[in-house]
Amino acid sequence: MKYAIAIEYDGRAFAGWQIQPDQPTVQAALEDALSRMAGHPVRLHAAGRTDAGVHATRQIGHFETEVQRPLTAWVRGVNSFLPPAVSVLWSRQVPDAFHSRFSATARHYRYLLLNHPVRPALMAGRVGWMHQALDLDAMRDAAQRLLGTHDFSSFRAAECQARTPVKTLRRLDIRRDGQMVVCDFAADAFLHHMVRNIMGALLHVAKGNRPPSWIVELLAARDRTIAPPTFMPDGLYLAGVSYPAEFGLASEPEPRHGIV
Amino acid sequence: MKYAIAIEYDGRAFAGWQIQPDQPTVQAALEDALSRMAGHPVRLHAAGRTDAGVHATRQIGHFETEVQRPLTAWVRGVNSFLPPAVSVLWSRQVPDAFHSRFSATARHYRYLLLNHPVRPALMAGRVGWMHQALDLDAMRDAAQRLLGTHDFSSFRAAECQARTPVKTLRRLDIRRDGQMVVCDFAADAFLHHMVRNIMGALLHVAKGNRPPSWIVELLAARDRTIAPPTFMPDGLYLAGVSYPAEFGLASEPEPRHGIV
Repeated sequence: MKYAIAIEYDGRAFAGWQIQPDQPTVQAALEDALSRMAGHPVRLHAAGRTDAGVHATRQIGHFETEVQRPLTAWVRGVNSFLPPAVSVLWSRQVPDAFHSRFSATARHYRYLLLNHPVRPALMAGRVGWMHQALDLDAMRDAAQRLLGTHDFSSFRAAECQARTPVKTLRRLDIRRDGQMVVCDFAADAFLHHMVRNIMGALLHVAKGNRPPSWIVELLAARDRTIAPPTFMPDGLYLAGVSYPAEFGLASEPEPRHGIV
Repeated sequence: MKYAIAIEYDGRAFAGWQIQPDQPTVQAALEDALSRMAGHPVRLHAAGRTDAGVHATRQIGHFETEVQRPLTAWVRGVNSFLPPAVSVLWSRQVPDAFHSRFSATARHYRYLLLNHPVRPALMAGRVGWMHQALDLDAMRDAAQRLLGTHDFSSFRAAECQARTPVKTLRRLDIRRDGQMVVCDFAADAFLHHMVRNIMGALLHVAKGNRPPSWIVELLAARDRTIAPPTFMPDGLYLAGVSYPAEFGLASEPEPRHGIV
């Protein structure tokens, strides 16, 4: 049988998603817990291989097992074997054709940016921080120019292993919520560091260093070396993954904690 | 000159507010940073001496110095000497008659409770957790019966050093926000563990173990030993302090991050 699971984690506790020797990773913690519950080694695949320090409110993974367990075993049972910074939110049986990474039609990321003169303390490591005044209208203007299908090489990390730099950015909404700026991204898929690199460029515009139209030049150049630096991982959350309706995973539950 | 400061901190990083030998405390971190900025030893007083693991979104403190510095020195300057889990939000000069503890007319606490079958991961240590279904109407009914001036000995820790167990509870509002239950407390002052002990009793009612009217018996007994256990500190936040209008600290800024 194949199971899909939704996973929440605090990225500060891990050296990213993917298993690495001698480092705590989300994948390693989950494979260990799932294997203990199953009584055999379990391999876990995921929709997005998040970097060190990047969080998830709803990462989606899948695994296979022939062991018969009630669904709660793959949620509360597995959670009892996990460290505090990661938990399984739900588990559902899925058709054999399902693959958490290859079946995904869209990934949703949220970037939380504290825009205030005083650095975060309660949310340290959980939000990006920018103390300067930001022109959100200019930021939104620039953001809208990135929507659609483009070669995103200017926002692609050198280590990126994607087959193609052409991706379709479907959503980039920016709104203020108190002292926080909430940026919602959706695309078929994202290149390595793409959200953080786009944030770096948008904030360059929001601080008034460049006009919104400059982002079009940056995109057209297809050259990472001329773009602003990668923005900090602290405020980045994998917030959800979309799949075709046939897999029955399309409807998303309510968020757990407001904007975070 | 006397200065009031507002302080935010993540209680997980500290063994409570008050200075203790060989333990990291919020007071010690702040006195060290203020002393470095002033160039002389600074003593800091605060409105509420929070326990280990208890957070603050707006603790109020005060200190005295004859050193002339721009107000930003007591905010951004001091923050540069503080560990990541604590920051000064603002600083204002106050009359000599001001005392952060003795001038306070009300303290405001918020308790955040995740009410969901799955334990928190992203908010681990930052919210209380109750996986059972809760009857919030019964909880609110019980809460309303605690309002007013009472002897709160049934909700007072044995170590409490307050002169009197008689306090005036002015507000105890309970609302659901997604998977979170948000409980807002206000009183002239609180006894040691009073909010966590009231939470323990209210959750006893919310789980259906006792009817709302039982809380009146509990209050009347003035006996801590018959009340339910102290609830976990994780979800408790000192959210603000009220002072007489003459001190110019009455108007509170917008919250930084929604409900947290």
